[in-house]
Amino acid sequence: MPLDEALSRILAQTSILPTQWVNTFEADRRVLAQDVVSEVQVPPLDNSAMDGYAVRTADLPEPGGVLPVTQRIPAGSLGKPLEPLSAARIFTGAPVPEGADAVVMQEECQIVNECEGGVRIQIAPKRGQNIRRAGEDIHLGDKVLQRGAVLGPAHLGLAASVGLAALPVSTRPRVALLSTGDELVMPGEIAPQDMARLRPGAIYNSNRFFLRAMLERLGCVVTDMGVIPDQREATVAALREAATQHDLIVSTGGVSVGEEDHVKPAIKSLGALNLWSLNIKPGKPFAFGQINRSGTDSGPCQFMGLPGNPVASWVTFLLLVRPAVLAMQGVTETALPVREAIAHFDCPRVERRREFLRVRETAHGLELFPNQSSGVLTSVVWADGVVDNPPGHTIAKGDTVRWVAWKDLLAL
Amino acid sequence: MPLDEALSRILAQTSILPTQWVNTFEADRRVLAQDVVSEVQVPPLDNSAMDGYAVRTADLPEPGGVLPVTQRIPAGSLGKPLEPLSAARIFTGAPVPEGADAVVMQEECQIVNECEGGVRIQIAPKRGQNIRRAGEDIHLGDKVLQRGAVLGPAHLGLAASVGLAALPVSTRPRVALLSTGDELVMPGEIAPQDMARLRPGAIYNSNRFFLRAMLERLGCVVTDMGVIPDQREATVAALREAATQHDLIVSTGGVSVGEEDHVKPAIKSLGALNLWSLNIKPGKPFAFGQINRSGTDSGPCQFMGLPGNPVASWVTFLLLVRPAVLAMQGVTETALPVREAIAHFDCPRVERRREFLRVRETAHGLELFPNQSSGVLTSVVWADGVVDNPPGHTIAKGDTVRWVAWKDLLAL
Repeated sequence: MPLDEALSRILAQTSILPTQWVNTFEADRRVLAQDVVSEVQVPPLDNSAMDGYAVRTADLPEPGGVLPVTQRIPAGSLGKPLEPLSAARIFTGAPVPEGADAVVMQEECQIVNECEGGVRIQIAPKRGQNIRRAGEDIHLGDKVLQRGAVLGPAHLGLAASVGLAALPVSTRPRVALLSTGDELVMPGEIAPQDMARLRPGAIYNSNRFFLRAMLERLGCVVTDMGVIPDQREATVAALREAATQHDLIVSTGGVSVGEEDHVKPAIKSLGALNLWSLNIKPGKPFAFGQINRSGTDSGPCQFMGLPGNPVASWVTFLLLVRPAVLAMQGVTETALPVREAIAHFDCPRVERRREFLRVRETAHGLELFPNQSSGVLTSVVWADGVVDNPPGHTIAKGDTVRWVAWKDLLAL
Repeated sequence: MPLDEALSRILAQTSILPTQWVNTFEADRRVLAQDVVSEVQVPPLDNSAMDGYAVRTADLPEPGGVLPVTQRIPAGSLGKPLEPLSAARIFTGAPVPEGADAVVMQEECQIVNECEGGVRIQIAPKRGQNIRRAGEDIHLGDKVLQRGAVLGPAHLGLAASVGLAALPVSTRPRVALLSTGDELVMPGEIAPQDMARLRPGAIYNSNRFFLRAMLERLGCVVTDMGVIPDQREATVAALREAATQHDLIVSTGGVSVGEEDHVKPAIKSLGALNLWSLNIKPGKPFAFGQINRSGTDSGPCQFMGLPGNPVASWVTFLLLVRPAVLAMQGVTETALPVREAIAHFDCPRVERRREFLRVRETAHGLELFPNQSSGVLTSVVWADGVVDNPPGHTIAKGDTVRWVAWKDLLAL
């Protein structure tokens, strides 16, 4: 099955989760569920862009005029109307007093000692000079933030600047994570130096670690269900229970042809299961299913089964699980964020499948990880991302290729 | 003061925080404090790269040989030595049995019905075919992760794959955040529609929102101390107390010439304070100081005072506070992550200071936010980052410019 068709089928089953209101302080990396409109204008009043003196330009037709300083207006205080032939000491952000039509920056003024409290204005100011107009930045009723935006620090600051103490965001997807595989040992259960003696042939479970971190980075709340028990009835009960509390269940292992586990028949008995052979490398086998939830109106819980090989699991997660959890939060842009770069390697091998080649960005262009068959994460740590190479396509040094960077994929 | 000199002085005062061990599950975005060396080899044993049949190549000099299948080896089980003239059913990741020297993928095999449990091997396999060698990915004693690395999902997976249930990371910087400014109102205190009537000239405090989010994104634990009371004694007491519990105090507001607050004299009385006029725009005024801590051996608590203008506060945070909190965690690369791009705008104005121009990335190159004097965060939300424009330098459409993207700055 082509990757794009698999993705369409998954996204067709995905719907946006309900809206909740969260404190603006807590809204970083959440996805906005409604447009935000300003109920204030910013700045609220005409105000000074500089530290200096507010004046009437009519009083200062030529440079060198001297005026008495009749008031002092710090930010946050209103001041009195400015009498003709006087100046007001004013600070950045402070409202310009009624009557004043310019602010002269303090570097262009000179305190006049002989005339106590007087100031010499060394220029002839222009009307409006150094004044920020009320509403110049935000008008009343302006849409300041758009539904579907992934909120960052600047968005929170902007929301706060129009007085919003809470924001409407999509609920976080609740994801249950489970693994299958008799060969898996959890780090900490057996010390590294004892592994070869105590459990020859066993390997440490690494998928749970990176999948949980990736899901959390993409806004999900993760429940780690551990390794699923090797019994049919217990597996059905665990999955039925997990489905009531989660929007998505992600498993690793047990999806290859010939692999037997209890998860696949359990999902089938609780809803529906499709086993796909994706036209990609790494990451061919993939399972997609649904678990029906009786007694709720929220539709079925989705199920995605990733291959057990860590690199295949990593790649299929980014290609298929990532867009699904983003779509659940109402993110508008879920497509792969593709960049272009120059290949600093040759890849003359013809591959029938769409291949994702681990590469690292250097000053000369992209370099290729030497062992693309590697099943461990050394290559993923070494690499900055993957080239997305179409089926049957070869690459020569100097070609422009399309690639995707981990850092563009792994943050909200 | 030139920005680079200010940064050097700050980094000279910064030291790496102590090391702590955290669960590998919880180590995402933390900074590794020691090199990680593997005490296992990966894979632990020669194993199959495919689902298929393990064979002896000597038994199959020509395509079409038929062998009895004498055992079945799933991943995680060891199997028995392979007798001559027999084959073992084997799955991806399973150890290759003693005596076998190749694996034939299942697509190149045919189950032979007439001879129960037999398989026809349709190729003449080569020695070593489809076998991943023990230690091929990681040798015993390999350094798999480097001190100073910012850990991501792949690093956690790799650490888990060599059996590490905990990792040594730098302690998170503890940062106290405070603001000064009588004009500031917290969102929620007064509703937007009542602001103009109840507090004319007042503005909402937005700095606390984005500064807290930025600090948290950069690995800090933040204490929000709110607006500092407008009394000298209370300010001294609050800062002395904050210094005992934190590595850094960040304030906004009160750093411009002519602004009076109680924070600056309080810091001076508790340690040292420098008021800098930085040669940058926006963001000229900046305060850097230390509060002595008696009775500890951990050196003084650092103090950084940012300007109150939100955009100036945003820019100076990224230029000076960000590298400091990264250095405290032992991040090796704290310099601005500069990119190059084509300017799709003219900026003929000559500016004496090093200017950071808010720009957005488009298909035509970088576009300039029309109002660079804007004090609010609309421009920061609109922009993808800032062009770093040297003093006295003009920009014409089509020029290559250096710029920094928010997304490169705001994530670990």
